Amino acid sequence: MAQKPSLPQGTRDFGPLVVQRRKYILQIIESVFKKYGFMPIETPAMEQLSTLSGKYGEEGDQLLYKILNTGDYLKKLSAFQTQGMEQEEMDKTLLPSFDNSIENLDAKRSLPYIAEKGLRYDLTVPFARYVTMNRNSITLPFKRYQMQTVWRADKPQKGRYREFWQCDADVIGSDSLLNEAELIKMYDEVFAQLNLSVIIKVNNRKLLSALATYIKAEQHFTAITVAIDKLDKIGLSGVSDILVQTGLNSEQIEQIIKFLNLGKEENPIAAAAEMLEYIQEGNLGILELLQLQKFLNHLEPVNTIQFDFTLARGLSYYTGAIVEVQANVGSFKSSIGGGGRYDNLTGIFGMPGISGVGVSFGLDRIYDVMEEQGLFPTYLKPNTTKILFCYFDEATQMKAVSLCAQLRKNDISAEVYPEITKKIGKQFEYANKLQINFACIIGETELNSNTLQVKNLESGEQQPMEIETLIKLLQS
Amino acid sequence: MAQKPSLPQGTRDFGPLVVQRRKYILQIIESVFKKYGFMPIETPAMEQLSTLSGKYGEEGDQLLYKILNTGDYLKKLSAFQTQGMEQEEMDKTLLPSFDNSIENLDAKRSLPYIAEKGLRYDLTVPFARYVTMNRNSITLPFKRYQMQTVWRADKPQKGRYREFWQCDADVIGSDSLLNEAELIKMYDEVFAQLNLSVIIKVNNRKLLSALATYIKAEQHFTAITVAIDKLDKIGLSGVSDILVQTGLNSEQIEQIIKFLNLGKEENPIAAAAEMLEYIQEGNLGILELLQLQKFLNHLEPVNTIQFDFTLARGLSYYTGAIVEVQANVGSFKSSIGGGGRYDNLTGIFGMPGISGVGVSFGLDRIYDVMEEQGLFPTYLKPNTTKILFCYFDEATQMKAVSLCAQLRKNDISAEVYPEITKKIGKQFEYANKLQINFACIIGETELNSNTLQVKNLESGEQQPMEIETLIKLLQS
Repeated sequence: MAQKPSLPQGTRDFGPLVVQRRKYILQIIESVFKKYGFMPIETPAMEQLSTLSGKYGEEGDQLLYKILNTGDYLKKLSAFQTQGMEQEEMDKTLLPSFDNSIENLDAKRSLPYIAEKGLRYDLTVPFARYVTMNRNSITLPFKRYQMQTVWRADKPQKGRYREFWQCDADVIGSDSLLNEAELIKMYDEVFAQLNLSVIIKVNNRKLLSALATYIKAEQHFTAITVAIDKLDKIGLSGVSDILVQTGLNSEQIEQIIKFLNLGKEENPIAAAAEMLEYIQEGNLGILELLQLQKFLNHLEPVNTIQFDFTLARGLSYYTGAIVEVQANVGSFKSSIGGGGRYDNLTGIFGMPGISGVGVSFGLDRIYDVMEEQGLFPTYLKPNTTKILFCYFDEATQMKAVSLCAQLRKNDISAEVYPEITKKIGKQFEYANKLQINFACIIGETELNSNTLQVKNLESGEQQPMEIETLIKLLQS
Repeated sequence: MAQKPSLPQGTRDFGPLVVQRRKYILQIIESVFKKYGFMPIETPAMEQLSTLSGKYGEEGDQLLYKILNTGDYLKKLSAFQTQGMEQEEMDKTLLPSFDNSIENLDAKRSLPYIAEKGLRYDLTVPFARYVTMNRNSITLPFKRYQMQTVWRADKPQKGRYREFWQCDADVIGSDSLLNEAELIKMYDEVFAQLNLSVIIKVNNRKLLSALATYIKAEQHFTAITVAIDKLDKIGLSGVSDILVQTGLNSEQIEQIIKFLNLGKEENPIAAAAEMLEYIQEGNLGILELLQLQKFLNHLEPVNTIQFDFTLARGLSYYTGAIVEVQANVGSFKSSIGGGGRYDNLTGIFGMPGISGVGVSFGLDRIYDVMEEQGLFPTYLKPNTTKILFCYFDEATQMKAVSLCAQLRKNDISAEVYPEITKKIGKQFEYANKLQINFACIIGETELNSNTLQVKNLESGEQQPMEIETLIKLLQS
């Protein structure tokens, strides 16, 4: 019996129109990346599990897709166990690269037997691995972009898929805030080109660090950051509750709330300076924000850039500027992009001293917002075919084939209806369903004439013209 | 201790120049697909194992990458077994969708516990699944293209990777040989645009079928096809050996060899007709080849189209025309593309009566041949940056930022050197390493002047010019 096929949860097929629209977004992002001097790299979908594991926190590890080793390890393992083979013998037989010196041998034994590879979870860790492995051929500063699929075994929900695209641009090996400014301007430019109004929120982790020092709670910096990150969802009182549980007293919490409210002041940066500039990190953070503002003024963004002290970017590894993009229209309030400055990108792979700054665009969420808002240009169609050649028999078919070849030589997308049929209506119906605007009808008269009958299928108007005129019409 | 990172065997990173070159190939393939009226679809990397299993023969099944179910099934399984839980209870607990009615319950039990998903192995089975699941929204004939990664756990060797790209174009729902002709012409056009000389070999499976009938060995049709497919590697005597083992007698084998040699005749199709036209399938195959030839003559291919009766395309499901592309230069003799006509694409998914014809381009092999032959255009560089702005201090940096923004507004890729440094040599070195041709040097003089100093880094020539002139120079 034939099986009824299905798709894995959280994954999607993309039909022609959706692909064209996704490509439209990708092309705009990529053209901006290129315009700002970024260079493309691509890394494999499959990475060693040892490259991925432990890089995304405990929760991230659980969301990694692991790939079963080829060869039937489980079957062999079970056979060996039945034979009563010693564990060490099994290790050697089944896993030649197994390292006996690793601690917790028993705990670690089970997984490598069955999975040594995983699917790319983000583009940052593969980039760090790439930089480490290619350190001798990379010129610093290195401006790279990468637009690829990532996979996360997360619970699917609105705007969250298990297979989705990230588009990342990073600059490593340069501390200049010009990089931050240009990356923010790139957000601005991409969304302007997409006709999607956004708010670009900017903050600096150094201010959050200074805040922790200011209230004498340095040891709780991470907890404070994570709590502030939840503000959008749980409000100020929710944040307070978490901070109480963290062990902060009411005076400390009051100061945090005061800081979070600074964004409402007329000059938020000045207000933050008043509060935190006597803390070394605070002073640095303020200077960085001011310098960033100066660069941005020279770059003339069109979208709103908001210095927002409530922006925290959760558990991430950022150490300086942080940025997040939200749609300024529609119902979707999650971020459609984010990034920041980080220290020590490649330290985990044994290459210290590489810091950088980067931003990421979430293709799938941008798509969802644009679809909801009807922002895709109407010229995007399932195909790019300009004209369909229609005909009635073998002789007119051959003439259609030759004429169509002539259009294609002039780089015009064109089709010959593939089946011989006397029914012209069927051929027009095909053109209509595919949203092809013109039909060229080759009848017996056209066999020995240089004049073609060209029908505009939208207006119904039919016009005689020479092939040269038709080429000009379709190239315009 | 930091780990030394590595890549899984058979996978590769692609640096900037390689990505640009791969995109160059992909863009030419895609532009031809579009020009011939094909529409893009994309399917997920992860498919249900039930969609993939049993579709690629026993060997193919072993080469599928399987994805470990999330949640720790193995740990749970092991705990349940220790507790002495009954098998059926475990089935219900661990695998809610488990179907007890399936035969060979024991044999099938182990895999679904740990893996229900696999990675895309080709683009044909996902296309068949897509057509089946979207049958109500698809207009037939349906011309689709798909350019995506596929994964195979094959032994890596020259030209064979575990993660590679296929670019497929198929027409379903049309029996016209015009489709075959256009697909062959698309091969011709892509490789002409790539400047890669190829031989496009064409045959028809109906002739092989007729040959089996002619020598009264219909029951050995598959074995004969598989043997002929190995001709390139093992020669005529090797093919004979296999056919002897298959059980054919010397007279039968003599006839097969006679057929294989027909390609050397002045008019191979006429010679094949003489031998096989009294067999119904043979007559049909000859008529199809003649009709295909007629269409091709109207499409004017520039590469060699060779009617080659030794072409068999191995174990595949083709039933009519078959085609294969080989580079006509260099050392790499494996196919860089292939395809053919098939019956019943979607039958396995419960949707009968969908036949079609398609071709596939192997991006990675095409890349390897082009690299060996030095066929990539020299204008392809790691980046598309036209000019680097150099400067010396904060004031000249700001001027550089504004000027660079002006170029970008005119869609010119441009960069500002990201770090303030007095060393102009360091900035030029950066430009040289990135193969950026021009530098614009902003010194104190330029702060209050409309004249810019533009240096051609190839020739060393330096010229003063206004920004408008610079824009025109870089746009040209």
